[in-house]
Amino acid sequence: MAQQKVVLAFSGGLDTSFCVKYLSEDKGYEVHSVLVDTGGFSDAELKAIEERAYSLGVAHHATISKTDDYYQQCLKYLVFGNVLKYNTYPLSVSAERIFQAVAVGEYARTIGARAIAHGSTGAGNDQVRFDMAFRIILPQAEIITPIRDLRLSREAEIDYLKAKGVDQEWHKAAYSINKGLWGTSVGGKETLTSNGYLPEPAWPTQVTKSEPETITLHFEEGELKGIGDEKVANPVDAIKQLTELAGPFGIGRDIHVGDTIIGIKGRVGFEAPAPLIIIKAHHTLEKHVLTKWQLYWKDQLANWYGTMLHEGQFIDPVMRNIETFLTETQAHVTGQVHVQLAPYRFTVLGIESPYDLMSSVFGSYGEMNNAWTGDDVRGFSKVMSNQVMIYEKVKELAEGKNNAAE
Amino acid sequence: MAQQKVVLAFSGGLDTSFCVKYLSEDKGYEVHSVLVDTGGFSDAELKAIEERAYSLGVAHHATISKTDDYYQQCLKYLVFGNVLKYNTYPLSVSAERIFQAVAVGEYARTIGARAIAHGSTGAGNDQVRFDMAFRIILPQAEIITPIRDLRLSREAEIDYLKAKGVDQEWHKAAYSINKGLWGTSVGGKETLTSNGYLPEPAWPTQVTKSEPETITLHFEEGELKGIGDEKVANPVDAIKQLTELAGPFGIGRDIHVGDTIIGIKGRVGFEAPAPLIIIKAHHTLEKHVLTKWQLYWKDQLANWYGTMLHEGQFIDPVMRNIETFLTETQAHVTGQVHVQLAPYRFTVLGIESPYDLMSSVFGSYGEMNNAWTGDDVRGFSKVMSNQVMIYEKVKELAEGKNNAAE
Amino acid sequence: MAQQKVVLAFSGGLDTSFCVKYLSEDKGYEVHSVLVDTGGFSDAELKAIEERAYSLGVAHHATISKTDDYYQQCLKYLVFGNVLKYNTYPLSVSAERIFQAVAVGEYARTIGARAIAHGSTGAGNDQVRFDMAFRIILPQAEIITPIRDLRLSREAEIDYLKAKGVDQEWHKAAYSINKGLWGTSVGGKETLTSNGYLPEPAWPTQVTKSEPETITLHFEEGELKGIGDEKVANPVDAIKQLTELAGPFGIGRDIHVGDTIIGIKGRVGFEAPAPLIIIKAHHTLEKHVLTKWQLYWKDQLANWYGTMLHEGQFIDPVMRNIETFLTETQAHVTGQVHVQLAPYRFTVLGIESPYDLMSSVFGSYGEMNNAWTGDDVRGFSKVMSNQVMIYEKVKELAEGKNNAAE
Amino acid sequence: MAQQKVVLAFSGGLDTSFCVKYLSEDKGYEVHSVLVDTGGFSDAELKAIEERAYSLGVAHHATISKTDDYYQQCLKYLVFGNVLKYNTYPLSVSAERIFQAVAVGEYARTIGARAIAHGSTGAGNDQVRFDMAFRIILPQAEIITPIRDLRLSREAEIDYLKAKGVDQEWHKAAYSINKGLWGTSVGGKETLTSNGYLPEPAWPTQVTKSEPETITLHFEEGELKGIGDEKVANPVDAIKQLTELAGPFGIGRDIHVGDTIIGIKGRVGFEAPAPLIIIKAHHTLEKHVLTKWQLYWKDQLANWYGTMLHEGQFIDPVMRNIETFLTETQAHVTGQVHVQLAPYRFTVLGIESPYDLMSSVFGSYGEMNNAWTGDDVRGFSKVMSNQVMIYEKVKELAEGKNNAAE
Repeated sequence: MAQQKVVLAFSGGLDTSFCVKYLSEDKGYEVHSVLVDTGGFSDAELKAIEERAYSLGVAHHATISKTDDYYQQCLKYLVFGNVLKYNTYPLSVSAERIFQAVAVGEYARTIGARAIAHGSTGAGNDQVRFDMAFRIILPQAEIITPIRDLRLSREAEIDYLKAKGVDQEWHKAAYSINKGLWGTSVGGKETLTSNGYLPEPAWPTQVTKSEPETITLHFEEGELKGIGDEKVANPVDAIKQLTELAGPFGIGRDIHVGDTIIGIKGRVGFEAPAPLIIIKAHHTLEKHVLTKWQLYWKDQLANWYGTMLHEGQFIDPVMRNIETFLTETQAHVTGQVHVQLAPYRFTVLGIESPYDLMSSVFGSYGEMNNAWTGDDVRGFSKVMSNQVMIYEKVKELAEGKNNAAE
Repeated sequence: MAQQKVVLAFSGGLDTSFCVKYLSEDKGYEVHSVLVDTGGFSDAELKAIEERAYSLGVAHHATISKTDDYYQQCLKYLVFGNVLKYNTYPLSVSAERIFQAVAVGEYARTIGARAIAHGSTGAGNDQVRFDMAFRIILPQAEIITPIRDLRLSREAEIDYLKAKGVDQEWHKAAYSINKGLWGTSVGGKETLTSNGYLPEPAWPTQVTKSEPETITLHFEEGELKGIGDEKVANPVDAIKQLTELAGPFGIGRDIHVGDTIIGIKGRVGFEAPAPLIIIKAHHTLEKHVLTKWQLYWKDQLANWYGTMLHEGQFIDPVMRNIETFLTETQAHVTGQVHVQLAPYRFTVLGIESPYDLMSSVFGSYGEMNNAWTGDDVRGFSKVMSNQVMIYEKVKELAEGKNNAAE
Repeated sequence: MAQQKVVLAFSGGLDTSFCVKYLSEDKGYEVHSVLVDTGGFSDAELKAIEERAYSLGVAHHATISKTDDYYQQCLKYLVFGNVLKYNTYPLSVSAERIFQAVAVGEYARTIGARAIAHGSTGAGNDQVRFDMAFRIILPQAEIITPIRDLRLSREAEIDYLKAKGVDQEWHKAAYSINKGLWGTSVGGKETLTSNGYLPEPAWPTQVTKSEPETITLHFEEGELKGIGDEKVANPVDAIKQLTELAGPFGIGRDIHVGDTIIGIKGRVGFEAPAPLIIIKAHHTLEKHVLTKWQLYWKDQLANWYGTMLHEGQFIDPVMRNIETFLTETQAHVTGQVHVQLAPYRFTVLGIESPYDLMSSVFGSYGEMNNAWTGDDVRGFSKVMSNQVMIYEKVKELAEGKNNAAE
Repeated sequence: MAQQKVVLAFSGGLDTSFCVKYLSEDKGYEVHSVLVDTGGFSDAELKAIEERAYSLGVAHHATISKTDDYYQQCLKYLVFGNVLKYNTYPLSVSAERIFQAVAVGEYARTIGARAIAHGSTGAGNDQVRFDMAFRIILPQAEIITPIRDLRLSREAEIDYLKAKGVDQEWHKAAYSINKGLWGTSVGGKETLTSNGYLPEPAWPTQVTKSEPETITLHFEEGELKGIGDEKVANPVDAIKQLTELAGPFGIGRDIHVGDTIIGIKGRVGFEAPAPLIIIKAHHTLEKHVLTKWQLYWKDQLANWYGTMLHEGQFIDPVMRNIETFLTETQAHVTGQVHVQLAPYRFTVLGIESPYDLMSSVFGSYGEMNNAWTGDDVRGFSKVMSNQVMIYEKVKELAEGKNNAAE
């Protein structure tokens, strides 16, 4: 009888290495490991992970390159929506993980697997993202979660692997790092409390630049299509380039305090120079080219989009509806944004756009304008105050009437 | 026959000085000038303005001290709501001006004036704020706006005053500055375009500190009640103290791009160290002590509150309703926030609060918890994904069915 | 020298007839009258209005047929969004008027007019809708509003026309009626107070049916594409047919209490059988085929869409953004809705749709389901209650701690 | 050794009767049954349930009368917020069940129980409401759910009880009815499909009135304080009285299609004459006395409040925050509302209130007003159209510029 296939979301770390051995040897599965690359791995790293997978005994290992899709189907909308969770966090890991979970689920469906596994623990958001994506894409499949269920200690996992002949050094880093196209998260003992801050050496990118630089970002219909003189066809390249430029300034570092999907509060450090700069630059450009109510409703929908993305609800059709809305708002979001980079901070200096509504053609704030007169504004103010003026008058009368009656 | 009284919102500048002469000598009014102090003036400045008013010929000048009321009836809610217009601007001038307009209107009602005047031009937000407040508080009064109506040049105003015997130096500063308790705005030639940034000397507070300092802010039910070891009874004092501490770092500078009430886009520089630090610190504390939905709805209401305040709609009763909501959310917003100040930037390091929901009692993010099991989360994920799972399945069936029918 | 052209929004009533004479004879304009038909006029009526225009002396009269555009560019979205202002009013007149105003403005631009006129009074919403549409489409044109500016009584207008040789009967109806594709409004002495209700004879359609009828509405991607056995290519025909069917039952009558654009409260009766039935049927279908969050966000955006439409802000680009969103949500809104019509009321009996999420495939409410177990729900409930459970516990501890300290 | 106490939410029906025997005899608990009366039971029914409990062998039975609290702590806010889920359903059962769950939880805490049980199945909303309330109030208690876990058929439960000596008639009604102060729900074979409608005899209250009646509802600060000439101290009495008056007309019947907490769609019939009439009357009064933005924000918060209440999240502190907001908005919601009752329908005829903003003092809609002129509105319209006018102009220029470049 043929072995049953299980697809395993594999990262090459201790937990998922344990899963390979456990699923194949203890549970008798034919393990198909999958790594979804969303821009966080070098070719060498991908190759090493593949080798690790085979050396652990997988039947097949697939590396799925999804960086462009990740941008086109997810990050793009975070830019369009200026999404910063709680005004702080660009959802660096949230976006990546749900996107990977969906890709693993789709892969499992493609190869006809009836079981699917992930190595998340029972304490965080990732387990829910994997669980939900797998359940929606493969409702009949069994979802296997050895790490969550067995609750083994790190040492127990190492011992288990050693017993299975996997005798390697499992380096326990002081800080747990998750690197991706949209930023790098950093967890450590300081983030386990409410009151600690990450020390300088804990940040993945060390500060090596001290002299301010001014750069120009080119946006076309809301997308970053070049920095300085260089235009790019693929915004992914611009994001990478900006990360290179701004990272060594220590820009885009902060600590996010968030609500996990499972209801507890969590804290995580991150460095995300490109997202932070792109979002503030993009938002500034939008303030010049969109109407007041476009800005208002974009915020409403984008904020919600970010929350649902964070909580693993990426597949809900309302997300597609919101993406359409956001895309539709970007027709005029074209122009240059000038930004100054400096150690630990950046400043948006100004913008240029053919769609700038602060056009001098129509006079500008602070100067009298020919498109309307003082009397027009007087009339405007009068009509605008009508309702509250009536409210106050009626209140006075009603209360007087009541007083009279007393 | 007695002269008719007019109440004039008076600042001592060229425009309102012109108004005094124009209203008293050309229009024959008995001019009652009023200055509402919301924390932006020293005693010496207030005294000089009063002397200026009398020397111009007002019948009476009143200085109304409203700093505490300004905090209690307005700024407090901007803190509770973490209000930053378009994620940037603490509404430094917006809040102050509408608050002053209301105070002038109430003063006029108290002294029984039937005419009320302001010196705003026809190009900005302030005219609408004054117009609306005056109309609502004194619906029958005539609102007189000489500067907006006559559209005189600066030179013409100076010539007029000279002809009336007021022969003084009217200094034209390169940058127009509005200083208040909640920040200082800076306008100049750079802010008239979309692309200029204010040069270092244009900022009112020059940078004189270079060594980082760490401070602790004490919040009680959402209000700043002390910095470091020093507790204060009045948050106004803490705001002033924080401005003194952080200003010389150049913290809290930015340029706001906004929608004026009259529909044009405007740009204004500001430095607001205390508001920026207080709001980020307060927001961080809230992320630890409020539930997810409290954070969500506070944002919704506070964002709207800021917009209506900005647009001169402070008197609408919905504002009182929102204030009640915001106050009600602050019961647990008590604790310390540690902040590091550095040149041009600050970092919120962490918080301590008895109401911190990231309490170690209940386990913490990143560690397996005893309050629920892996199976609980598996069930949670399953139920959470039900609707979209069904949606996808039904869609597949419906489209299959349709295909079959074709 | 050639006469200057003015385009006049013309209805054939007393006010706009006055405008023709006044503009042509007193003001010397070449008057181009325009009537925009959005489904409220018969061919005979359109012809009579044209004849009236020429007999009054217009240089040219244009009848612009816009019924299909009106549906495609406006009403369709009111259906997609289930828009009922304050849960009551389908915006029968609001939608029509702004749509007509835009069409008149565009016509004026086409013929190169530099002046444009409407006959609205100074008391209602229509003046603002015309003013705003004209200003946006033709910013340089003069907007002439004789009725608003001259404030003549009805009798004075009749006398003026008589003096100009227009000696006809101007019938003053007891109720002012505005009939359109999306409903008929009725104003009279009862609606001028807060407490009167329209008497039976005031309603335009009298009740002649007493036996209940059951009908089936066919929706395709959100649009009504047939009633009963009859499919139609054009939803406009289905709306007209439904009006014929349901009107004689007296269905869809109510009184709307609303906020006018100019800040006063207003009351207006309406009968709108087709809109009320279509919207409730469509909404019921949506409750079966959309996810919870699609329903939520549709409501948010559609409610806002209705308000901006009502207030004459139809041209704001955010309206196009919202329309895209609403359209995107309708992909699955296909199926039949069964409705019972009875005197003065109707009942939605049920729906059928291939996209129905209440599919028996997945078990149904009230019966145990195989897609999840009791333990799954137990886990779900546990995780869902985590945050508030922690909140209550922390509160208890904090307050105990405080008590201890006292 | 003493038996362990379990508190059981007891209704006297088959499921909870099974639970008594199962918990006491099979599991060895000391069973404390509790019935929380929220207005749905007569004294005789309460007595019969108590007797049933003791006859089944409970150690103690408590009847907790919570009708007034239910109104004061829950229903009141549904009136203030005009809460109708999906514009249809007054949350008759949702509100009651969560309120009962909280009361049972608090009772269990009071008597020091470490186990707590409910008899809900695994298919509906109630299980989640009980689970969540119990978990939050008694985080350490074991939650026992025999019906959900054992998944016994009705017949198996009857057999079990018979074997335990409980040999009574367990009447299986064709329709499952849940009667409460805020309405009665009706489920049956028609509501298990998407397409059936309840037949006339299925409705709990049969139609016995045919002649229309007009009544007057008295509201004080948002609460119903009397009908007709009779004022009541307790709104609960007015709700009961209105139910008596309107029920025999068959008013307030409909079918609700909803999203259950567990993600499936469900359908339930209900008759709720009092809630439907009170909410429409109250809303109409509010349209007269509140400002536009008060109406807008009340809707936002109340809609959310209803959803969280429905989903068992009543204890989240954001609910208390929203209640404060809603209460604060009701200061002027005082007046009379005239309503006509007729078979199967009702009509709100009009209102009277000292706080009516449609006051004739300020002129009324449809008549020219002295508080502003045509020129004022012209100015208003001009300023209101500024932004979109500029948007269109800039767009034209930008696109022309682009064209020129091509």
